[in-house]
Amino acid sequence: MKYVHGYDQKENIRLQDQATTLSELLHHDTVYPAHDRILEPGCGVGAQTISLARNSPDSQFISIDISARSIAEARNKIEAEGLKNVIFQQGDIFKLPFKPESFDHIFVCFVFEHLVHPDDALITLKSLLKVGGTMTVIEGDHGSTYFYPDNEAAHKAIKCQVHLQKMVGGNANIGRELYPLLNKTGFTSINVSPRMVYVDSSKPHLVEGFTKNTFIAMIEGVREPAIRSGLIDGAIFDEGIKALYRTTESDGVFCYTFFKAVAIKP
Amino acid sequence: MKYVHGYDQKENIRLQDQATTLSELLHHDTVYPAHDRILEPGCGVGAQTISLARNSPDSQFISIDISARSIAEARNKIEAEGLKNVIFQQGDIFKLPFKPESFDHIFVCFVFEHLVHPDDALITLKSLLKVGGTMTVIEGDHGSTYFYPDNEAAHKAIKCQVHLQKMVGGNANIGRELYPLLNKTGFTSINVSPRMVYVDSSKPHLVEGFTKNTFIAMIEGVREPAIRSGLIDGAIFDEGIKALYRTTESDGVFCYTFFKAVAIKP
Repeated sequence: MKYVHGYDQKENIRLQDQATTLSELLHHDTVYPAHDRILEPGCGVGAQTISLARNSPDSQFISIDISARSIAEARNKIEAEGLKNVIFQQGDIFKLPFKPESFDHIFVCFVFEHLVHPDDALITLKSLLKVGGTMTVIEGDHGSTYFYPDNEAAHKAIKCQVHLQKMVGGNANIGRELYPLLNKTGFTSINVSPRMVYVDSSKPHLVEGFTKNTFIAMIEGVREPAIRSGLIDGAIFDEGIKALYRTTESDGVFCYTFFKAVAIKP
Repeated sequence: MKYVHGYDQKENIRLQDQATTLSELLHHDTVYPAHDRILEPGCGVGAQTISLARNSPDSQFISIDISARSIAEARNKIEAEGLKNVIFQQGDIFKLPFKPESFDHIFVCFVFEHLVHPDDALITLKSLLKVGGTMTVIEGDHGSTYFYPDNEAAHKAIKCQVHLQKMVGGNANIGRELYPLLNKTGFTSINVSPRMVYVDSSKPHLVEGFTKNTFIAMIEGVREPAIRSGLIDGAIFDEGIKALYRTTESDGVFCYTFFKAVAIKP
């Protein structure tokens, strides 16, 4: 699996300052060899699948999601792009209908943050991976969020999202844990590469595409459940959201970090 | 000033994942053209001066500090390295004995975090810079610190350092503010590049050299003033320090981000 630690891996941050989209920042250095078979569990509506399939046009992807509706949407998206190297299947990440060691690589993005036992999922997936195959995991970390101007209410609003996710067994701060997770589940040659999204007003596409339409929209989305659960007062939540929008003005700065880990099954 | 936005700048994160030292992470992409004259105000004991002078052996550095003792130490260091391209001078950053527009570039590292009016300092320094010359600013940001396992007392101990620095007019969270600072003082083509120090136990040199001997040592250093100022209870501070050391164990992770800005005087 030389390419994992070879030129591509060493060069993988080269584009970081230039990345104009989140997908470029996260996926530009995921390129698989021709004819390799890659499992993508938890593909959802195919947001990452498109980048994967485009970057490795001669590899074969098997993309799985528990939701038949998501699979249908993902399939439409991939077909609309004219990509032919993805097979979609409905399935449960813990009960996948594949023989042991039947994949060259596994790619998991934004899945473990939702699981009560991500370590069990990793062990299950590991059994499907060939010896020497790579496991790629990408997760965000809400605790990596900071901004200018700083604001206490904004941090409180973000923490509502973290608490709500915890209440249903998830972990919105899992990004920083990828190294210990992969280590304790028996992977080796673990390489964690932080992918920081740094946004100031010289990057208007990220101000709109990331700060406003991705991050703030997500926090705004938990207003009602956060208030209903007694996590926060409505006025403070609204003050926090206003302060988050304040960071998108001409003198504002917003920072968030995703973590990308690549490891090998020994 | 093509090289600032050309190949070097675009490639500047290439080494980020591989950087084994803080100096490599922060300075590898600062390379000045031969014969250019560069001002380094606030050089202190020359910690950054060595990297600067080595990376640009044919440029001429004028490194200034207000402390004659620091200047003497910096001079010894540079002489011991056999570097001949640095002139040291004692001086106040606000009253430097140079004619307007007498430098091709200015480089300032870990200085503005200590100033009550970093914007005034930037304006003063700008007057010494030739039109089209570059201003490079590097600062840390203590608010960018997070770790695994997470711990509330550790965050409280770190906040003591932030508060103490604020009490003497400084700003330990200034890193995220470099873009607005350079913008409001009239610089253009501002490019801010975050330099994240990501440390897990696969990087033992950073566990020792950065997490323990740089970051935790700095926080440990404010124990007495923090308790004396009533900012924290001694037991909680000590719990926080213990928790920070916990992040240096085999399953621990530690994150901190420096910000490097390069801008042009229009």
